[in-house]
Amino acid sequence: MKLGFLGLGIMGTGMAHNLLKAGFSLTVYNRTASKCAPFVEAGATQADTAADVVRASDITFAIVSDPEASRALCFSENGVLDGISEGKGYVDMSTINAETSKEIGEALTAKGGRYLEAPVSGSKKPAADGTLIILAGGDKSLYDEAEKAFEAMGKKALYLGEVGNGANMKLVVNMIMGAMMAGFCEGMSLAEKAGLSTTDLLDVLDAGAMSNPMFRIKGPLIQQESFGVAFPLKHMQKDMRLAIALGDQVAQPLSTCASANESFKKARALGAADEDFSAVSKAIKTS
Amino acid sequence: MKLGFLGLGIMGTGMAHNLLKAGFSLTVYNRTASKCAPFVEAGATQADTAADVVRASDITFAIVSDPEASRALCFSENGVLDGISEGKGYVDMSTINAETSKEIGEALTAKGGRYLEAPVSGSKKPAADGTLIILAGGDKSLYDEAEKAFEAMGKKALYLGEVGNGANMKLVVNMIMGAMMAGFCEGMSLAEKAGLSTTDLLDVLDAGAMSNPMFRIKGPLIQQESFGVAFPLKHMQKDMRLAIALGDQVAQPLSTCASANESFKKARALGAADEDFSAVSKAIKTS
Amino acid sequence: MKLGFLGLGIMGTGMAHNLLKAGFSLTVYNRTASKCAPFVEAGATQADTAADVVRASDITFAIVSDPEASRALCFSENGVLDGISEGKGYVDMSTINAETSKEIGEALTAKGGRYLEAPVSGSKKPAADGTLIILAGGDKSLYDEAEKAFEAMGKKALYLGEVGNGANMKLVVNMIMGAMMAGFCEGMSLAEKAGLSTTDLLDVLDAGAMSNPMFRIKGPLIQQESFGVAFPLKHMQKDMRLAIALGDQVAQPLSTCASANESFKKARALGAADEDFSAVSKAIKTS
Amino acid sequence: MKLGFLGLGIMGTGMAHNLLKAGFSLTVYNRTASKCAPFVEAGATQADTAADVVRASDITFAIVSDPEASRALCFSENGVLDGISEGKGYVDMSTINAETSKEIGEALTAKGGRYLEAPVSGSKKPAADGTLIILAGGDKSLYDEAEKAFEAMGKKALYLGEVGNGANMKLVVNMIMGAMMAGFCEGMSLAEKAGLSTTDLLDVLDAGAMSNPMFRIKGPLIQQESFGVAFPLKHMQKDMRLAIALGDQVAQPLSTCASANESFKKARALGAADEDFSAVSKAIKTS
Repeated sequence: MKLGFLGLGIMGTGMAHNLLKAGFSLTVYNRTASKCAPFVEAGATQADTAADVVRASDITFAIVSDPEASRALCFSENGVLDGISEGKGYVDMSTINAETSKEIGEALTAKGGRYLEAPVSGSKKPAADGTLIILAGGDKSLYDEAEKAFEAMGKKALYLGEVGNGANMKLVVNMIMGAMMAGFCEGMSLAEKAGLSTTDLLDVLDAGAMSNPMFRIKGPLIQQESFGVAFPLKHMQKDMRLAIALGDQVAQPLSTCASANESFKKARALGAADEDFSAVSKAIKTS
Repeated sequence: MKLGFLGLGIMGTGMAHNLLKAGFSLTVYNRTASKCAPFVEAGATQADTAADVVRASDITFAIVSDPEASRALCFSENGVLDGISEGKGYVDMSTINAETSKEIGEALTAKGGRYLEAPVSGSKKPAADGTLIILAGGDKSLYDEAEKAFEAMGKKALYLGEVGNGANMKLVVNMIMGAMMAGFCEGMSLAEKAGLSTTDLLDVLDAGAMSNPMFRIKGPLIQQESFGVAFPLKHMQKDMRLAIALGDQVAQPLSTCASANESFKKARALGAADEDFSAVSKAIKTS
Repeated sequence: MKLGFLGLGIMGTGMAHNLLKAGFSLTVYNRTASKCAPFVEAGATQADTAADVVRASDITFAIVSDPEASRALCFSENGVLDGISEGKGYVDMSTINAETSKEIGEALTAKGGRYLEAPVSGSKKPAADGTLIILAGGDKSLYDEAEKAFEAMGKKALYLGEVGNGANMKLVVNMIMGAMMAGFCEGMSLAEKAGLSTTDLLDVLDAGAMSNPMFRIKGPLIQQESFGVAFPLKHMQKDMRLAIALGDQVAQPLSTCASANESFKKARALGAADEDFSAVSKAIKTS
Repeated sequence: MKLGFLGLGIMGTGMAHNLLKAGFSLTVYNRTASKCAPFVEAGATQADTAADVVRASDITFAIVSDPEASRALCFSENGVLDGISEGKGYVDMSTINAETSKEIGEALTAKGGRYLEAPVSGSKKPAADGTLIILAGGDKSLYDEAEKAFEAMGKKALYLGEVGNGANMKLVVNMIMGAMMAGFCEGMSLAEKAGLSTTDLLDVLDAGAMSNPMFRIKGPLIQQESFGVAFPLKHMQKDMRLAIALGDQVAQPLSTCASANESFKKARALGAADEDFSAVSKAIKTS
C-alpha cells in the first residue's frame, strides 16, 4: 500500500516520520518544499503538488493548521481534488469543523474518492512519539485500510461514524478539558489564598479518584506560573466556543463549561492568547 | 502506645478494624454500645464513656457524622474534654468545619491536651481497605506519634499545618471534584445530544491526559443512570457551598465552581439529594 | 420626497401605514402581492417588483424576517440591487447581522446607491403606534434625509456611525434585557420558594431605583405563567448568542450574560422556544 | 402617641428629623450622646439609655449599622430588653438577618412587648427626603399603629407577614439589583469594546422597556468611572451572598445571580469593596 503525506509542520513532521519508521512507502508534499529534504533522506519520495501525491498514493494523509488551510489544500489548483480518482482515499487529520469536513468529503466522493476526517488529540510530543489519539469519521472501508498507518501514528484510533463525528468528538473532549482546567486553577488559587500549600493540594489530588496526568504535569507549571505553550490558550478557547455553539444547536445547556469559557476569554483579554491553556490561571488569580 | 477509638459507624468500623489488624492495643466506645461487640471479640477493650476511652489511651481517634456530633462528643458530660489531661492526644477524623475544629482544639489544649483534626478523603470501601487519604492539621508532635496509626488506616497522610487547614483542604479538593464532575456530565450530555457515542467518549478520555479513576468508574454508571450512593450529592453540594464561602472570605472569585454548584443545587431540587453526587447528571440532562 | 416600502408583514404593516398617515408619497411591494391592497386603498402605489419600487423612490425602506430574507430581497432577480442607481437611498430595517449588512451595503454603494441599516427595538404594537426605537448605521446624508420618515415610524432614532453599529447596538441592548429578565425571574422564584409574596416583590421593585416598564408588564404575566408571545424566546436566545459571539471577537468576557444565555437555552430545551422570552422563568422554576 | 428613636447615624438622622417634622413627640438616644443636640433643639427629649427611651415611648424605632449592633442595642445593659414591658412596641429598621431578628423578637415578646423588623430600601438621600421603602415583618397590630410614622419616613411601606420576611425580601430585591447592575456593566463594556458609543446605549436603554432610574443615574457615572459610594459594593456582595444562601436553603438554583456575585467578589479582590456597587464595572472591564 502506497501512502502520501501533505503538511510537514509541527505535527506532520512527527507523524510522517513515524509512517516511514513503520516501513510504509511514502510520497510527501509541503508548501515550503525545503521541508521535504529530511524525509527524502529517510526514504520518502517528494512530489511537486498535492495532486501528484494523491495520484501516486492509495491513501493520502494531511495535517494543516486550520479549516481554511484544509480547504485550500483540497480545492486550490493542483490540490487534492485535482488528483483524486475512483477508490483513492484521503484522510484529513487537521482540526477542522464539521461543515468544512462535510464540504471536502462531498467534493471528493463526487469524483469517486473516499474520505475520512481524523483529527487528533495530542500535540507535538505525542505526534513525535506516535502516541496520538485519532478520532475518525467517514468512510469505514478507508478507516479499516488506514488502521495500520494509524497504529504507527497513534496509541489509539476510534471510528466514530459519519463525517463530522470526529470533529465534534474533539470539541466535546476539549470542552471537558477546559472546564476541568478552570476548576483546577480555581482550586489552586483558593488553596493559596486560604493559606494552604498548593504542593500539598497536588499531592492529595494525585492520591485520589481524580488523579490524572494533566493535573500532574500542569500543576507544578501553574505553581511556577510557567506557561510555555503545549496547547495554545486561544485554540482551547476557540474549541470551547465551538462546543458551546454545538450545544446551542442541539439545545443542550452547558452552564459550567460556559463559565469556564468566560475565564478563558478573560485570559485572552489579559494577553495570554498565545500561552499554554493552563494560563487561564492568570484570569482566575488576577480576579 | 495505647489507642482509643470513638464512633463505630460506617467509616469507623473499617478504620478501627484496621488498627486492630495492625496490632495496636485499642479501647473503643460507641453511643450504641452493642456495636462494640465485634471489636471486643477481635481483642479491643470496651469503655462506658468517651472520657474513659481518653483516660485509658495515649491517643484517641474519633469519627462521627457531622460538626454537631463532634461537638457533642467533646463537650457533653463524660465526653472527651472530661477525660483529657496533660499530654494526651485527641484526633478528630470527622468532616468538620474549621470553626468547630478550632473550638474543640482550644478547649482541649487549655486542659493540657494535644489536638489534631484529620478529616479523610474516601468513603466506606477505602475505610475498610485502609486506603483513605488523611488531611491533618494541628499539633505536629501528635501527628508524628499518630503516623503509624494513620498508615494502618490510610494510604496517604499529610500534615498540613495549623488547625483548620485539614478542613479547608478537604473543601478545596471536593470543590475541584464537583466542578470536574459537572463539566464531565455536560460533556456526556452534549455527546449524546450531538449523536456521538458516550462509550467512545469515555474511551477517548481514558486514553488521554485527563484519564482518571473517577471518569472510569462513574462514566458507565452515568450512562446507565445508576446513581447508587458512594458520596451523597447533598454532601458534595454542602462542601461546594462551604468552599465558595471560603472563597468569599478570602476574596477569591470561583466562577466555574459557582456554576457547578448551581447545577448540584438544581439536582437537589430535582430530588437527587440522597443519590450519588454523579446524579448532578440529572440536572444537566433535564435542562 | 418619494418613499418606497418593501415587506408588509407584522412589523411593516404598521410602519408603512404610519408613513402614509404622515403624508408621504409611498410605493409598496410585498412578495405576497395581495397584502398590498389595504395600502393602495390608503393612497399608496403598488409595484410589481422590489427593483421597481427602488426605481420609483428616492428612499426605499424594507423590513423582512431575517438576514437570508434581506439578502434575497437585495440580490435576487428584480431585487433592490437591480433597481438601485446613483444617489438613491436604501434603508434596511430588518434585524440583520453586521456581516450581511456590510455585504448589502457594499453592493449597493458600488452602484452609486446610499445604504443605511436601521434595525428597530420594539415589536408589533410599537410598530403600529409609531413608537419604535430606530438604531441606524451607515450613510449619514441618507440618515438626515430619512429622519422625517423615522419620526413617523418611531419615537426615537439614533445615528450610530458606520454600517454594523446598528446591528451590534441591538445585540447589546437585547443582551442586557436577557440578563435582566433572567435575574428578575430568579428573584421571583426565590421569593416564592422562601414564602414571600411575589406581588409584594413587584410592588417593592416598582417603588425603587429599578422601577421599569418590563418588570411592570411581565411581572404579573410571569406570576400567572402566561407566556403569550411578544418577543419570542428563541429570538432572544439567538441575540444573546450573537452578543456573546461579539464579546468573543473583541475579547470581552460576559459571565453574567453567558449564564443567563444558558437559562434561555434550557428553556428552549424545555419547549418554550416559541413562547415569550419571559418563559425563561420555566427553566428557572423547574430547576 | 409617643415615639422613641435609637441610632442617629447617617440613616437615623434623616429619619428622626422626618418624624419631628411630621409633629410626633420624640425621645431620642444615641451611643455618642452629642449627636442628640440638634434633635433636642428641634423639640425632641434626650434620654440617657436605650431602656429609658423604650420606657418613655409607645413605639421605639431603631436603626443601627449591622446585626451585631442590633443585638447589642437590645441585649446589653440598659438596652431595649431592659426597658420593654407589656404592650410596648419596638421596630428595628436596621438591615438585619432573619436569625438575629427572630432572636430579638422572641426575647421582647417573652416580656410582653411587640416586635416588628422593618429594614429599608434606600440610602442617605431617601432617608433625608422621607422616600424610603419600608419592608416590615412581625406584629401586625404594631405595623398598623406605626403606619403614620412610616409615612413620615418613607414613600412606601409594606407589611410582609412574619418576622424574617422583611429581611428576606430585602435580600431578594438587592440580589435582583446586583444581577441587573452586572448585566448592565457587561453591556456597557461590550458596547465600548465593539466601538459603539455608550452614550448612545444609555439613550436607547432609556427609550425602551428597560428604562429605569438606576441605569439613568449610574450609567453616566460608570462612563466616567466615578464610583463615589451611595451603596457600598461590599454590602451589595454580602447581600448577594446571603440571598444565594437563602436559595441554597430552599433548593432554588440562581445561576445568573451566582455569576453576578462572582463579579462582585472579583471587584472586592480588585480593591473596590468600599466604592459604590456600580464599581463592579471594574471587574468586568479589567477582565
